[in-house]
Amino acid sequence: MKNMEFTPRKEPVIYVVEPYGGSVRKHLPSLPLVYWDDAAVTRGDGIFESLLIRDGKAANLARHGQRFINSALALELPEPQLEKWEEATNLAIADYFGPDGQGEAKCTWTYTRGRASTGHPTAWVVVQPIDAKIIEQRAKGVKVMTTPRLWQVAEELPAKTLNYAATMATLRLARGKGFEDVIFTDPETGLVLEGATSTVVAVRGDKLRTPAGKGILPGTTQAALFEYATEKGYRCKAKEITPGYLERSDSAWLVSSVRTAVRVTNLDGTRLKAPDNAAEIRDLLDAALAR
Amino acid sequence: MKNMEFTPRKEPVIYVVEPYGGSVRKHLPSLPLVYWDDAAVTRGDGIFESLLIRDGKAANLARHGQRFINSALALELPEPQLEKWEEATNLAIADYFGPDGQGEAKCTWTYTRGRASTGHPTAWVVVQPIDAKIIEQRAKGVKVMTTPRLWQVAEELPAKTLNYAATMATLRLARGKGFEDVIFTDPETGLVLEGATSTVVAVRGDKLRTPAGKGILPGTTQAALFEYATEKGYRCKAKEITPGYLERSDSAWLVSSVRTAVRVTNLDGTRLKAPDNAAEIRDLLDAALAR
Repeated sequence: MKNMEFTPRKEPVIYVVEPYGGSVRKHLPSLPLVYWDDAAVTRGDGIFESLLIRDGKAANLARHGQRFINSALALELPEPQLEKWEEATNLAIADYFGPDGQGEAKCTWTYTRGRASTGHPTAWVVVQPIDAKIIEQRAKGVKVMTTPRLWQVAEELPAKTLNYAATMATLRLARGKGFEDVIFTDPETGLVLEGATSTVVAVRGDKLRTPAGKGILPGTTQAALFEYATEKGYRCKAKEITPGYLERSDSAWLVSSVRTAVRVTNLDGTRLKAPDNAAEIRDLLDAALAR
Repeated sequence: MKNMEFTPRKEPVIYVVEPYGGSVRKHLPSLPLVYWDDAAVTRGDGIFESLLIRDGKAANLARHGQRFINSALALELPEPQLEKWEEATNLAIADYFGPDGQGEAKCTWTYTRGRASTGHPTAWVVVQPIDAKIIEQRAKGVKVMTTPRLWQVAEELPAKTLNYAATMATLRLARGKGFEDVIFTDPETGLVLEGATSTVVAVRGDKLRTPAGKGILPGTTQAALFEYATEKGYRCKAKEITPGYLERSDSAWLVSSVRTAVRVTNLDGTRLKAPDNAAEIRDLLDAALAR
């Protein structure tokens, strides 16, 4: 009997990128990749980008590429050769999806300071399945806990680094309390900063707002959404936001590349009612990412 | 002609530790060790300890072991089986030094949340040569820049994690200005916190002082020093310290496991004159570490 429900989980595809613009090569995911003295492992000294692969191509590629370059510059890594990263991404997409090219996947670019013993950066691209939990959260939304963030690395080091240990610890704490995600606030002002791995967006009628201020990593997905939504007649603004503002909005969203837009259904125990236009917001983002 | 100056640089020795108390196994340093989906690489989600190996044994082992356990608990990693880490360390020491067992080396314990695809922690021990620069800094001291630290992760997550990207960026900035190391200060109070990878100690006569307060990772080497110095009649205290206090002390030191004690010879451009008792302080620490 054929089980129509069963979709075999595809193997991740890895391509190693030669950091100075040389060749790319495929790497088996079942073999170790990183050496014991790589700065990624010893110091978390590296950067990454997560990209959504949809229908055979990387969504919002130009913004991810620009942020990747900005992150590398902030860490004083050699400037990434974007055409090589795109080449590796396209090869990995082709291998992963095969001839049909349909569906979604998650792509990660990782770029580290490399081995202490060689001084050369380490660089690779992975294309892998999107976690089932992410797909579920897109449909159901997430219960969110706000918590003051005691570190402001984005201000000091405006880069998407590999340093997420404290963020991961905060997520574990939130999950232990029955929440699924976290929104960080400024410990002094109480203002909303950002999600654990996402940008916060509040919707009121035709107004879209995202938090402005220090300590917020610019969101590539939020930027794509705001550009497209502005063209469609929405009024989009980066401005200070309180948790109360989120509660009193028509809807509040966590926006990021792979999860796209996930609605906040509960904030610190207060249920946020479903808006009439949830599908409209999601369609807006899907259209923004399809360009 | 035999060149007496030439000491061949020894190969690092790696032992992989099975996290649940199983066997340890040797790993070639010239082969990759860590998988693409290890949380150390994707999130910096792991902990480490650096230990000094001197005359065939790990110095200050009990304090490093206790901090390692504390760090694992803070990250909700399975509690490390210390006897296995010690076994791996002793095997690596024996392989590294050979029969004579003389001299020094650096040992690193690394313990990560492990591969996303398996859920098992990754754990290994490295014994490797101490950088020539470290040996030089012990003799010559370091020029230090103070800088406010905008993150207080130690307060949020009291663990020695792999998240040093911002610290490394600060060190690069300092080196670009002609300094060799950094002392972080509290951005609000201006008080001294800690070195980039060390504990600050100020000496005035028979008084030893280290900064007290939030956002300071407890130093294993400073703790060993204070315990031993107290027995020898020094008055040791953890108390708030300003950069000015450091300047007006007989001497100021950066204390850490592998570099042991490095004197601050210059603070923000102000030369700190050599004390009469530099050798006394260093002997005190060497004796403390030899117990």
